[in-house]
Amino acid sequence: MKPQENIEAYLSRRAAEVNQWLESLVPSEMTPPVNLHRAMRYSLLAGGKRLRPVLVLMAGEALGAATDDLMPAACAMEMIHTYSLIHDDLPAMDNDDLRRGRPTCHKAFGEAVAILAGDALLTRAFEVLAAEAPGGDVDRQIRVIKEVAAAAGTVNALIGGQVADIENEGRQVTDSTLEYIHRSKTGAMIRSSVTIGGIIAGGDNNQIETLRQYGEKIGLAFQVADDILDVTSTSEQLGKTPGKDMAARKATYPALHGVAQSENRARQLVGEAIEIISALGPSAYKLKEMASFIIARTS
Amino acid sequence: MKPQENIEAYLSRRAAEVNQWLESLVPSEMTPPVNLHRAMRYSLLAGGKRLRPVLVLMAGEALGAATDDLMPAACAMEMIHTYSLIHDDLPAMDNDDLRRGRPTCHKAFGEAVAILAGDALLTRAFEVLAAEAPGGDVDRQIRVIKEVAAAAGTVNALIGGQVADIENEGRQVTDSTLEYIHRSKTGAMIRSSVTIGGIIAGGDNNQIETLRQYGEKIGLAFQVADDILDVTSTSEQLGKTPGKDMAARKATYPALHGVAQSENRARQLVGEAIEIISALGPSAYKLKEMASFIIARTS
Repeated sequence: MKPQENIEAYLSRRAAEVNQWLESLVPSEMTPPVNLHRAMRYSLLAGGKRLRPVLVLMAGEALGAATDDLMPAACAMEMIHTYSLIHDDLPAMDNDDLRRGRPTCHKAFGEAVAILAGDALLTRAFEVLAAEAPGGDVDRQIRVIKEVAAAAGTVNALIGGQVADIENEGRQVTDSTLEYIHRSKTGAMIRSSVTIGGIIAGGDNNQIETLRQYGEKIGLAFQVADDILDVTSTSEQLGKTPGKDMAARKATYPALHGVAQSENRARQLVGEAIEIISALGPSAYKLKEMASFIIARTS
Repeated sequence: MKPQENIEAYLSRRAAEVNQWLESLVPSEMTPPVNLHRAMRYSLLAGGKRLRPVLVLMAGEALGAATDDLMPAACAMEMIHTYSLIHDDLPAMDNDDLRRGRPTCHKAFGEAVAILAGDALLTRAFEVLAAEAPGGDVDRQIRVIKEVAAAAGTVNALIGGQVADIENEGRQVTDSTLEYIHRSKTGAMIRSSVTIGGIIAGGDNNQIETLRQYGEKIGLAFQVADDILDVTSTSEQLGKTPGKDMAARKATYPALHGVAQSENRARQLVGEAIEIISALGPSAYKLKEMASFIIARTS
């Protein structure tokens, strides 16, 4: 972090770096099939906080990795995140019209192209992960691919969480179901982002486990905060349709426990995350700031 | 091949082996989310010729690889193939009701689960590829992942071909567009199947290039033969709705050139494939038989 650069300035600087890499890592709009690549870029380069890539960078750099070695994996996480948003927004799923302040991919390009653009971003993510060994270390590279594929998968992971989310729509869910959904749908990819940062940096098992536990906490905190925002924000602030979770009777933390208790829970998780990550020493100060920032949006 | 075992007996024996591996490589129907895993298994374990995995085995074994080292990659190719079928069959794409003689995935499980089951099979394929280095060789493992991700991608590859196919529906296409669609949509994954067999076996660059060229030829031959079958078969023979290509005014070789000329073209491609693969010497005899078998279904 540059001297006196606050976390918001830092995050937008890193997001801009990530955007430049993303730009270069997907085929141009001139490459056939033109319409597909346009759709991929439309959704991938629509802005957004770049939370997952920035977490890869922060975690990796905390353990001494070079930015250039972290960026491809950081971008792969964003590609997978974007694919999951495109598919989640489809009429057969959440049927959303608005995302990051613009029409969703299927609204702009039609359903067929949107499905394929999602498929393509997922596939491209693995191609990018396989393209070059970070720091020339092929063993770490394979570990990263393994970790990412598991986080994007079905068991306590991204796709599994989305299925559980859809299946529980309109039902009264228990705390443990809600936590399962959160841990899987958002949590797995966030946890995995900090974990692969640590793997690329060549962290030892203790360090990587510390990062994973930190990721677990901030992943949950992020989802609780996100649920609170859905209740308390306007469409303009959110860049997507607010109140949709409640309208769809989706399982959310505020729906179960109210906004005040949700805010408490988020603060508690952030406190735990900060305590955990202290084990990495002074180099983890960005990760500490980040933990606090994740819930700052809600207050 | 066992003594006097003809190619059909051989292929069904290998397909049965592949099925056993596939069975073990996706989560059971008892693992939550149950419905998703059921849908994945429903489509993946529905039978089929297992052409792509068997090509991985044949190519790899021709260069001396052990079956156990080839099987995970072979199964990954089938997972990717199945994901592409599930997504192609969706209402927004080809809107097919029947596949491998049974209701398509979205007919049986609904659209949302079908989309996610496809996503999950694609993701699982990469997880399987990353799980263990064939023969302990991590460099080969990474090369395989790179090759597969490219073949399943957008540029002259699986997804790109599907987009071009959809976009040209109802249009009069040129020979070169048709060849682009074929080379990409079916060709890339078939070519890649024999190529990764060679990589896993540790083949030299010449051997791998020979396999790739052979794969190119049989991939095209297979697609021409498949198009012919769509015109000349019953639903029962085909396991899916016949005449659909023509009804949808899809670009096919018989539509451009008629059935007789298509049969000639397929035979010519197979001849070329056999000539190319002769460079590998006697161990390639199965690949030769396979080339002929690929078009035998049509005559």
